[in-house]
Amino acid sequence: MEGAARVIARRGVRGLRMEELATEAGVSTALIYYHFKDRAGVLRHTLEFISDRADRYTSDDGAAGPYDARQELEQSLLLEFQNLPEVRENSTAWGELRASAIFEHELRGDLARATLTWIHDVADLLGRIRPSAPAPALTAAAERLTGLLEGLSTRWLSGALPLEHARELVKEAVSIEVERLDR
Amino acid sequence: MEGAARVIARRGVRGLRMEELATEAGVSTALIYYHFKDRAGVLRHTLEFISDRADRYTSDDGAAGPYDARQELEQSLLLEFQNLPEVRENSTAWGELRASAIFEHELRGDLARATLTWIHDVADLLGRIRPSAPAPALTAAAERLTGLLEGLSTRWLSGALPLEHARELVKEAVSIEVERLDR
Repeated sequence: MEGAARVIARRGVRGLRMEELATEAGVSTALIYYHFKDRAGVLRHTLEFISDRADRYTSDDGAAGPYDARQELEQSLLLEFQNLPEVRENSTAWGELRASAIFEHELRGDLARATLTWIHDVADLLGRIRPSAPAPALTAAAERLTGLLEGLSTRWLSGALPLEHARELVKEAVSIEVERLDR
Repeated sequence: MEGAARVIARRGVRGLRMEELATEAGVSTALIYYHFKDRAGVLRHTLEFISDRADRYTSDDGAAGPYDARQELEQSLLLEFQNLPEVRENSTAWGELRASAIFEHELRGDLARATLTWIHDVADLLGRIRPSAPAPALTAAAERLTGLLEGLSTRWLSGALPLEHARELVKEAVSIEVERLDR
């Protein structure tokens, strides 16, 4: 899975060849087909792998904590912008899987589910910050924050937006959305 | 250029072959190389073409107007979400060019410039809505609104977000950002 994420981040989903993946992972192509059945199986498991990995590097596990819900939310969004190979690779692969779903319909269900989980987690944190806010308002705010994050992430990765500025924009977006929930 | 936008929206930037483009445009590959020099030249001109075309279909030219600045801003953002082949194709090609810049550095300068122009136009409209807001606040709001739009656009095109809901989220984002400029 690490190898698949690496190859996708390097060549894109459409550049993913089972042979290169096998070489990257140091196994035979036969073994890959045995485990994942087909290309779609590889993509599906890679999506799961990068989602889990993103959960890990955005949770920060009290390293600088303990955090309240507001700090936890900010951190989980800001940690998507880090100049670490793992984070860049993960975001690149996520963007690739997302973009490939425009052309290939096979991955759409899994991607929609992964997106919903993410939105749900963010809405949850927003609900802990503003317990009296109605659920639809929390979800809409979470949809906007995660949508903004995806948009800015591609800009960052393609060199159109400096890392620090991306983080400032996200930080302010959090404060704007939380404020809005007060009304 | 229409042919190039069509091929990119169908196969992605990395699937763009000069031969298919020539067939699509009904000309020889030699003529394409003569006009655009190389693949990068084709991509650069396609970017310009889809930017101009987006300006056209998001401006609405008083069809339902006359508009004030607030309505003009809303319309210009909402008209990016339309279930018309031209709009889907344009947004798909834009997303593809943006994503390809992560892997190919050649297009980065042009893309960054096109993005800045867009941000500038949106900041301008925000400035007409709230003339007393400081310029950096206008720019940051425009960066967020256009970034959100890019993020939601990919979700919409990949079937993870219904058109009408995308439009609602954008509409509310405009109202949140304008409100924020009052403070």
